[in-house]
Amino acid sequence: MHALRLNGWKSEAVLEDVPVPEPGPGQVLVQVGGAGACHSDLHLMHDFEDGLLPWHLPFTLGHENAGWVHTLGTGVTGPEPGQPVAVVGAWGCGACARCRVGFETYCEDPANAPVPAGGGGLGLDGGMAEYLLVPAARFLVPLPDGLDPVHAAPLTDAGLTPYHAIKRSLPKLTPDATAVVIGVGGLGHLAVQLLKAVCAAQVIAVDPRAEARQLADEAGADLSLSPDADTAATIRQAAHGRGADVVLDFVGSEATMQTGLAATRMLGDFTLVGIAGGSVPFSFFSQAYEVSLQTTYWGTRGELVEVLDLAARGLLRPDITRFSLADAPEAYRRLAAGEVAGRAVVVPRDAYRA
Amino acid sequence: MHALRLNGWKSEAVLEDVPVPEPGPGQVLVQVGGAGACHSDLHLMHDFEDGLLPWHLPFTLGHENAGWVHTLGTGVTGPEPGQPVAVVGAWGCGACARCRVGFETYCEDPANAPVPAGGGGLGLDGGMAEYLLVPAARFLVPLPDGLDPVHAAPLTDAGLTPYHAIKRSLPKLTPDATAVVIGVGGLGHLAVQLLKAVCAAQVIAVDPRAEARQLADEAGADLSLSPDADTAATIRQAAHGRGADVVLDFVGSEATMQTGLAATRMLGDFTLVGIAGGSVPFSFFSQAYEVSLQTTYWGTRGELVEVLDLAARGLLRPDITRFSLADAPEAYRRLAAGEVAGRAVVVPRDAYRA
Amino acid sequence: MHALRLNGWKSEAVLEDVPVPEPGPGQVLVQVGGAGACHSDLHLMHDFEDGLLPWHLPFTLGHENAGWVHTLGTGVTGPEPGQPVAVVGAWGCGACARCRVGFETYCEDPANAPVPAGGGGLGLDGGMAEYLLVPAARFLVPLPDGLDPVHAAPLTDAGLTPYHAIKRSLPKLTPDATAVVIGVGGLGHLAVQLLKAVCAAQVIAVDPRAEARQLADEAGADLSLSPDADTAATIRQAAHGRGADVVLDFVGSEATMQTGLAATRMLGDFTLVGIAGGSVPFSFFSQAYEVSLQTTYWGTRGELVEVLDLAARGLLRPDITRFSLADAPEAYRRLAAGEVAGRAVVVPRDAYRA
Amino acid sequence: MHALRLNGWKSEAVLEDVPVPEPGPGQVLVQVGGAGACHSDLHLMHDFEDGLLPWHLPFTLGHENAGWVHTLGTGVTGPEPGQPVAVVGAWGCGACARCRVGFETYCEDPANAPVPAGGGGLGLDGGMAEYLLVPAARFLVPLPDGLDPVHAAPLTDAGLTPYHAIKRSLPKLTPDATAVVIGVGGLGHLAVQLLKAVCAAQVIAVDPRAEARQLADEAGADLSLSPDADTAATIRQAAHGRGADVVLDFVGSEATMQTGLAATRMLGDFTLVGIAGGSVPFSFFSQAYEVSLQTTYWGTRGELVEVLDLAARGLLRPDITRFSLADAPEAYRRLAAGEVAGRAVVVPRDAYRA
Repeated sequence: MHALRLNGWKSEAVLEDVPVPEPGPGQVLVQVGGAGACHSDLHLMHDFEDGLLPWHLPFTLGHENAGWVHTLGTGVTGPEPGQPVAVVGAWGCGACARCRVGFETYCEDPANAPVPAGGGGLGLDGGMAEYLLVPAARFLVPLPDGLDPVHAAPLTDAGLTPYHAIKRSLPKLTPDATAVVIGVGGLGHLAVQLLKAVCAAQVIAVDPRAEARQLADEAGADLSLSPDADTAATIRQAAHGRGADVVLDFVGSEATMQTGLAATRMLGDFTLVGIAGGSVPFSFFSQAYEVSLQTTYWGTRGELVEVLDLAARGLLRPDITRFSLADAPEAYRRLAAGEVAGRAVVVPRDAYRA
Repeated sequence: MHALRLNGWKSEAVLEDVPVPEPGPGQVLVQVGGAGACHSDLHLMHDFEDGLLPWHLPFTLGHENAGWVHTLGTGVTGPEPGQPVAVVGAWGCGACARCRVGFETYCEDPANAPVPAGGGGLGLDGGMAEYLLVPAARFLVPLPDGLDPVHAAPLTDAGLTPYHAIKRSLPKLTPDATAVVIGVGGLGHLAVQLLKAVCAAQVIAVDPRAEARQLADEAGADLSLSPDADTAATIRQAAHGRGADVVLDFVGSEATMQTGLAATRMLGDFTLVGIAGGSVPFSFFSQAYEVSLQTTYWGTRGELVEVLDLAARGLLRPDITRFSLADAPEAYRRLAAGEVAGRAVVVPRDAYRA
Repeated sequence: MHALRLNGWKSEAVLEDVPVPEPGPGQVLVQVGGAGACHSDLHLMHDFEDGLLPWHLPFTLGHENAGWVHTLGTGVTGPEPGQPVAVVGAWGCGACARCRVGFETYCEDPANAPVPAGGGGLGLDGGMAEYLLVPAARFLVPLPDGLDPVHAAPLTDAGLTPYHAIKRSLPKLTPDATAVVIGVGGLGHLAVQLLKAVCAAQVIAVDPRAEARQLADEAGADLSLSPDADTAATIRQAAHGRGADVVLDFVGSEATMQTGLAATRMLGDFTLVGIAGGSVPFSFFSQAYEVSLQTTYWGTRGELVEVLDLAARGLLRPDITRFSLADAPEAYRRLAAGEVAGRAVVVPRDAYRA
Repeated sequence: MHALRLNGWKSEAVLEDVPVPEPGPGQVLVQVGGAGACHSDLHLMHDFEDGLLPWHLPFTLGHENAGWVHTLGTGVTGPEPGQPVAVVGAWGCGACARCRVGFETYCEDPANAPVPAGGGGLGLDGGMAEYLLVPAARFLVPLPDGLDPVHAAPLTDAGLTPYHAIKRSLPKLTPDATAVVIGVGGLGHLAVQLLKAVCAAQVIAVDPRAEARQLADEAGADLSLSPDADTAATIRQAAHGRGADVVLDFVGSEATMQTGLAATRMLGDFTLVGIAGGSVPFSFFSQAYEVSLQTTYWGTRGELVEVLDLAARGLLRPDITRFSLADAPEAYRRLAAGEVAGRAVVVPRDAYRA
């Protein structure tokens, strides 16, 4: 089968022929219906040196995957061939306290995971191929009626990541609260949609790009701002003069972090999702009392079930641009050039039955 | 001023002239802008004998009140004359653990409250008059921009009560959850609107009346059912085959309670709000494992702030039929006859400036 | 090997020779170190007719089990032979929303579980034998240092059940709260110990037996009462005049349920654990406002980890009476006669190495 | 009466004669039974320049106060003369969302508070005097039986502050969790006692002073460490190899913050309480995933009720060194010199009736 392979650090991924894998005991072979192309794949290709990551090359890219159950390894019960499924992206040990409740992103025993701190497309073969070998049935989530693998694939990351960030702050997102989304890109525009779906808080979006603010408006943002020196003050004022209860920073530069923190209300949450490399000092007086600062990374299996449910019911609507598997390198080229509207999803030829 | 007075148990309330009260130390006089007429007032007039309630007659009816701050007693700071406000309905002692956090409905020291287990219109003079004496500034909630006293008044009860019932169950109202509203009347139709606003759960409404189901559909219900022998099974099936995560029973008859409990998922909530007098047995096997059964009654001051915010932003839209103070007896007559569409609100003449 | 078999409904279990099972793919054979004898086994032997339970006879009794990993089936990674483990008692489908987070007691797809609504000793062969076949590695919890299988075995049920009931109510168990334990038997005395370990609430125990109240006192109860007509009032008074925040009823008769409910504070929890068959009416006025009534049954895998940790550190100290496997019938005979102090644990001969 | 007055910034407080205040409407005069001397008072005397704080000089020091209700202003109901009470230290507006639920420390409308961001002893006259004027009855908490004002006074700050920090993290403090207390001084030793009382987590104390570690051991710490280069690794190892679930830093230097953060488990809490002026960078990779960093400051009225309850029952035992009011300057001199064991409490002469 064809697969988009990463053969060396600091190199472009290339299409190659590889054997179709056969599922061993406990494993499941999934026919790929869609594989999302993520900015972090560009980092993988361009920014790492040998030895920095605990992974061995080569492997197939693609960590946002959905498709259909194809073949079951021995001992697997539950999934049925032909069943449409999304694939949980982070593959942990399955046995530690975090994995036991479906939070394999935060596995505490990575040495006993299929690959340390990774998954399909992150150290092991991913979904930019016709078939994907999934190491355990617990990584499959059945698709609800009304959701196809092409739309489900990017939700396993670009939908799940903002959803987890929102869900941990839900108790603070009362109807008189204000949520701020900084950076209305692939994750940010879904964050706005998710906030409007799951709570009644006012939503303020911040992005310097007019088209991004337009996207935020379409997603239901109550207010969209282009950042300037007064942004934090403007947010505080719009937020009943008190500041934002929850700020989600999908950029993560020093500038966005400073703005976000300055806009956060006492007892609020400032959550860093973007990895632009920013840093801010944390001290007793660097932010309002009891503002919580934290990162989040991906989400739980249970949260993915909820994300897919929202999408199946039309409450979460990712923008998709389809590419064939042959055009996967082109998808990444355009992604790097900022020329992809919404999320690029690679759809292998055999998957066009969808 | 004119006031609608209850002078005796088992009698109709009558319009009389009474003096305009003067606020003492700590008290606030409110000019009434709207006073909701509630079914429970009919109970007050018709169903109680002398000695059953810890209240002395006569008093003015009306426990759903909003208006404008008129005069401040000595020592009151904060409220400003002319400011539009809603009035918290339950007046507790202000000092017990419940009152300290704004849950005066559940006051644990009623002997030290302005009236035991009551408030304005419930043992003390209420809002069916031109002016209402409020015993403490903490019972006033400023109206947000965009909300007038006529629409705010019924929300202090008919909006707050379902909101509290929903809010206590919010952690269970995930996007893949199902909420059921039994009885789509004055509170139930607001419950459907509130559920759609504050979470992404599927909402199923149950009511034998076609016009009530129509109201539920307009409020955004995903499914509306007329009750029959299969209702519980229909709900369970629609709820992913698992049952409803949260059932709110705004009727409270034996039949609705049986249906609601039978439809509730393991670990779900069955919450009884309606007071039709039903009773069901509770034993180890009378419902699914760990279903919580409870009543709720009214809500907290903080929740009222959130309800008013939702209404000001158009997310909560009570149906209102206005009556003048002179027509207040007629409002109750029509309420008793089931001839009022939505909530009847009495609007004193001087308040027509709204 | 020897095993205590239930061969027919309404019959005593008998010791027989059965083959040592061999673990298939994904399964684990455990050498039994201790198997608790539970009152519910007496119900199994004496109170059910053919067809009432979804289980086929014969099977080996014993659903409270701990021991050492003996042999791994193919595909099992993680557990190591010789490792001491406790065995999770409820074996669900492993795939539904409840099972995915370790709450297999409340499995929502029992048709796909190893046995419907059961586990080892409950429809499948249990631990009253030299070896126990466990259908999946996820049912094993490694024992922490300092805890042996004999003491761990009863904790998988008699410790886990009260712990789950307590844990769900923990937010209400503040230092100024009051918890009530009704029935200080095998579960109840551990409930008192657990309450004293995990929170600072006042604990009141209720039991008509002097030796049970003595047990409660030793476990740290602040007050022990023999029930009489004033018990509810006595509890309310001792609980700051407000009533108990959490009542755990380990008996479950009509009398204990009535007392417990009458003693529960507004917004409190009344949790029914015991299965004495009692029933009380639930209506709007049958208890204080917003008291939650619910049953609980067993607990989650994560909670079992916490229970074992408490025991390893000496904060949970089950009373144990040991019986050899040959004496297992005698253990049940004495259990039925009320002659066992603490929990009866059957210790197979080979397990005396512990 | 005598009072310890701060007359100028960068000056020592001095004993002077001032008139006994008279309570106005809504106010309460409290006879002081004990007033704690706090390190932050030394900062007030020594470290601020004119204009830095929003307060006017002179005022009486003492923000940790307890005593007896002496005289009620008009309109005050509830407190009774002679009743022993603790005084809530932070005096907010009473009307904003935070104040309404008893969290006046985090008042969002300080311009309408009795003094901005302060209270008695912090901008207004405090308790280092024979009488203290309290601006509203809501700032009084009745003392439970068994607790005298001398021991209650320091708990209003040195007990409440760690209790609030602990309580916000309680859901993470399961029996298999680890809590770390950095700095076992006036607040830290109470933090250890509180942790042992309200949860079953393992507690590790860190302090370079042998006598402080001794204090931690007496308070029940499971492990006491003197900090060195390996402290974070030692904690992680003791914490099941996973890291600490909750770290409370009562020092707040750069070194303690770095150690604390490095020891914190994924999803854990790092809470900064001490004000030694340290700062650490916060970025995506500066700590484990989803570790929450936050400050906390004082606590809520409801939490103070719980703290006092713990102390009345002997579960919280502050070390006290008594000083007469005449010796108050000496108390601060010895406090500055590090010569006070436990908490210094000033006990006015008339209060010796306790």
